[in-house]
Amino acid sequence: LRGNHYLRVQGKLSLPQILTLGFLTIILVGTILLSLPIASRDGTATSTINSFFTATSATCVTGMTVVNTALHWSLFGKIVILILVEIGGLGFMTFAVLMFVFMRRKVDLTTQLLTQQSLNLETFANTRSVVFLVVRLSLAIQLLGALLLLVDFYPRYGLKKGIGFSIFHSISAFCNAGFDLFDNSLVRFQNDPYFLFVLTILIISGSLGFLVWKDILLYHEDHYLSLHTKLALTTYLGLIVLSFGVYLLTEGNFSENQHLDFFQRLMNTYFMSVTPRTAGFYTVAPTHISMGGMFFTMILMLIGGTPGSTAGGIKTTTVGILLIRVWATLRGKRDATFMGRRFTNSNVSRSLTLVFLVAVVLSVATLVLTLTEKIPQHSGIEYIMFDVVSAFGTTGYTLGLTPHLTVIGKLIFAVLMFMGRVGVFTVMYSLLNSKRPEDAFRYPKENVMIG
Amino acid sequence: LRGNHYLRVQGKLSLPQILTLGFLTIILVGTILLSLPIASRDGTATSTINSFFTATSATCVTGMTVVNTALHWSLFGKIVILILVEIGGLGFMTFAVLMFVFMRRKVDLTTQLLTQQSLNLETFANTRSVVFLVVRLSLAIQLLGALLLLVDFYPRYGLKKGIGFSIFHSISAFCNAGFDLFDNSLVRFQNDPYFLFVLTILIISGSLGFLVWKDILLYHEDHYLSLHTKLALTTYLGLIVLSFGVYLLTEGNFSENQHLDFFQRLMNTYFMSVTPRTAGFYTVAPTHISMGGMFFTMILMLIGGTPGSTAGGIKTTTVGILLIRVWATLRGKRDATFMGRRFTNSNVSRSLTLVFLVAVVLSVATLVLTLTEKIPQHSGIEYIMFDVVSAFGTTGYTLGLTPHLTVIGKLIFAVLMFMGRVGVFTVMYSLLNSKRPEDAFRYPKENVMIG
Ligand SMILES: [K+]
Ligand SMILES: [K+]
Repeated sequence: LRGNHYLRVQGKLSLPQILTLGFLTIILVGTILLSLPIASRDGTATSTINSFFTATSATCVTGMTVVNTALHWSLFGKIVILILVEIGGLGFMTFAVLMFVFMRRKVDLTTQLLTQQSLNLETFANTRSVVFLVVRLSLAIQLLGALLLLVDFYPRYGLKKGIGFSIFHSISAFCNAGFDLFDNSLVRFQNDPYFLFVLTILIISGSLGFLVWKDILLYHEDHYLSLHTKLALTTYLGLIVLSFGVYLLTEGNFSENQHLDFFQRLMNTYFMSVTPRTAGFYTVAPTHISMGGMFFTMILMLIGGTPGSTAGGIKTTTVGILLIRVWATLRGKRDATFMGRRFTNSNVSRSLTLVFLVAVVLSVATLVLTLTEKIPQHSGIEYIMFDVVSAFGTTGYTLGLTPHLTVIGKLIFAVLMFMGRVGVFTVMYSLLNSKRPEDAFRYPKENVMIG
Repeated sequence: LRGNHYLRVQGKLSLPQILTLGFLTIILVGTILLSLPIASRDGTATSTINSFFTATSATCVTGMTVVNTALHWSLFGKIVILILVEIGGLGFMTFAVLMFVFMRRKVDLTTQLLTQQSLNLETFANTRSVVFLVVRLSLAIQLLGALLLLVDFYPRYGLKKGIGFSIFHSISAFCNAGFDLFDNSLVRFQNDPYFLFVLTILIISGSLGFLVWKDILLYHEDHYLSLHTKLALTTYLGLIVLSFGVYLLTEGNFSENQHLDFFQRLMNTYFMSVTPRTAGFYTVAPTHISMGGMFFTMILMLIGGTPGSTAGGIKTTTVGILLIRVWATLRGKRDATFMGRRFTNSNVSRSLTLVFLVAVVLSVATLVLTLTEKIPQHSGIEYIMFDVVSAFGTTGYTLGLTPHLTVIGKLIFAVLMFMGRVGVFTVMYSLLNSKRPEDAFRYPKENVMIG
């Protein structure tokens, strides 16, 4: 199936271009809907740039806001945002296939190819069953999550508001979108370990990625885990453990929060070690953590989640491959190996290229923003850098810049969120209208998705 | 000669280990000399950590100071610093070979191999003649530079002090060390285009690297420029032009400096576009430039100069190769080519590994320093990051952290300077006691030095 990547569909647009245009279309439809008077709470039309920014942020599951989600948008507006999040989270190609299925037509080859590209599937013959699996699983987890959240929200907000809040935050958490209906993310839930735990389960479920889930779900049948799944789970777990340790060190387990007991504080540190990479919720605002914690959070946002999931960033497997490659190089080893498998050269080289490309893109964005944005006195370069990385990692944290962005700034951030979600390579290939390079060397080995 | 890299000299130490230990020995001798009472101006012994930091900074041609060079050190101390700079700049192996030559003994194979490793020479049969060429050229340029500076310094400081200052600053500039005998780098020379121009010529001469010079000097004979020289010159020139443009944009050609005329201001912008990558002199302090200029300076310091020169950082050719590789990947091209030559796979992959490794090292250093150092209120993360990159790029700029470093901070900075000068791979190979990996694939093509 490999060669199919290079097919020009209908002889006009390349696959990356169709994917890019598809996401763009969804964002534009969202922009139009959100700019309608009925989308805002006070019944006035929202400015095009703010509607565009919000639609991009929702579709790219970033959660960055230039207007307060709870206060500015009407119920209609909130539902539009939720639908955009769901489309962005599951990927619009999944939906396209679903539509075909519901129309009882056989999925045609073009759509199959697009879905495979979108989900980074390279080896699945039966796209339809994978997509069904993905969608069923996703909806089941989100439904279960909403029920578990309702246990907490019902006593707080009553039945009607409780159900609405449960659904909204379950979807937002599973899709790692980070939108919330409170004025200060989840700070009020600092002392609610049950809520925080349910939310991290939703976040982790959504950020493992569909391939990992498929491997886990089918494990009882074939007892097989792909190299991708092994690496993704290892790096994911490793990053949570590392984050927990580093945040314990930099934030001292929030010991100044005397209104929380030790276990509650530990729960906040755990929550913090799960969310920054792409979910973007917080119980302690990024502006209130230490300099070291802020810097480490930037690194986590840059890394992001698993490819094929709702996550942004350069992806966990990319970092995993590179760490293994560097260690092999330093040990004088020829091959980068993991759990008895060898990474292909093209896999490693694409990972490295991706990281370098991202470094260039983020540096240029930061440099341009220092010229276009107003930086408050006493603010450091992190005032720009942190939000730039947050947009690219589709985390959605801000140190204060995002709500005050200029129009140029909002456009740059929209591009960053788009690249973070759709993939740097996909966007670049679309712009340059080029195909993926043929691999210079091929091993009979497995590829790992790198985003 | 390739296989010789893997030779264990005397069956005990690997080549990277001998190089690392050699530099360490020089630093330790320098530390002892600088901690003597006669090295300081007031005749008291300097603390070991400050002597060690200064010796490291001098040997690694960084120019970072924890005590004021002009005010703290005696003439003896200044001469020690100057000798360390010269040794660090030309590379201690050049000196070892010179000593052999002066002792009228034939250079033995071990020394030849060490010199080749040190200068990144892979294809020279006659090490001795190359070293002679390097040393003669370096000394000639430094002598000429001192004479040209004397034209400026004689009227200012009289003959004796003028000669001393000329020699000191010529060596410091050629070796890209950035040490100066004034209290505020070269701010007082803002209105002295002649001085600034001579200094940039010295800086550029020293940072082109020996291989480039050899190619240029022998061009009338063989009309041959290596791929390395072509790429090094192109990236070098490109970076100066880019820097000039960006600084014009971010600093507005220093238009607030009304005491300077337009040409003088342009000269300062030009000076600024040459020095940050590794020299570390300035006429406008890093604390006085814009946020965008500061961020761009960080990028330039990270890039550094040409490998095989007195420069630190990840090196210009590394960045050049990676830009070409990324562009080729995005254009769907299989090979990264430049001026009719193809880069080898191992060259590209080592470049990428280097960049990733450096990113990890600098991130960990920054994170640890946020915990160990006292950060003034209202300071951003650049208070740490800028100085960290400056140390690794052996530039020597500071936003204020360096003079206030804790003992742990000084040790971390010493390691960063050391890695920047000796080379990340060399240091890592030494620590891990491993050999370079065999290349998985070999083309009959040229390698480019990447640092
Ligand atoms: K998010
Ligand atoms: K320097």
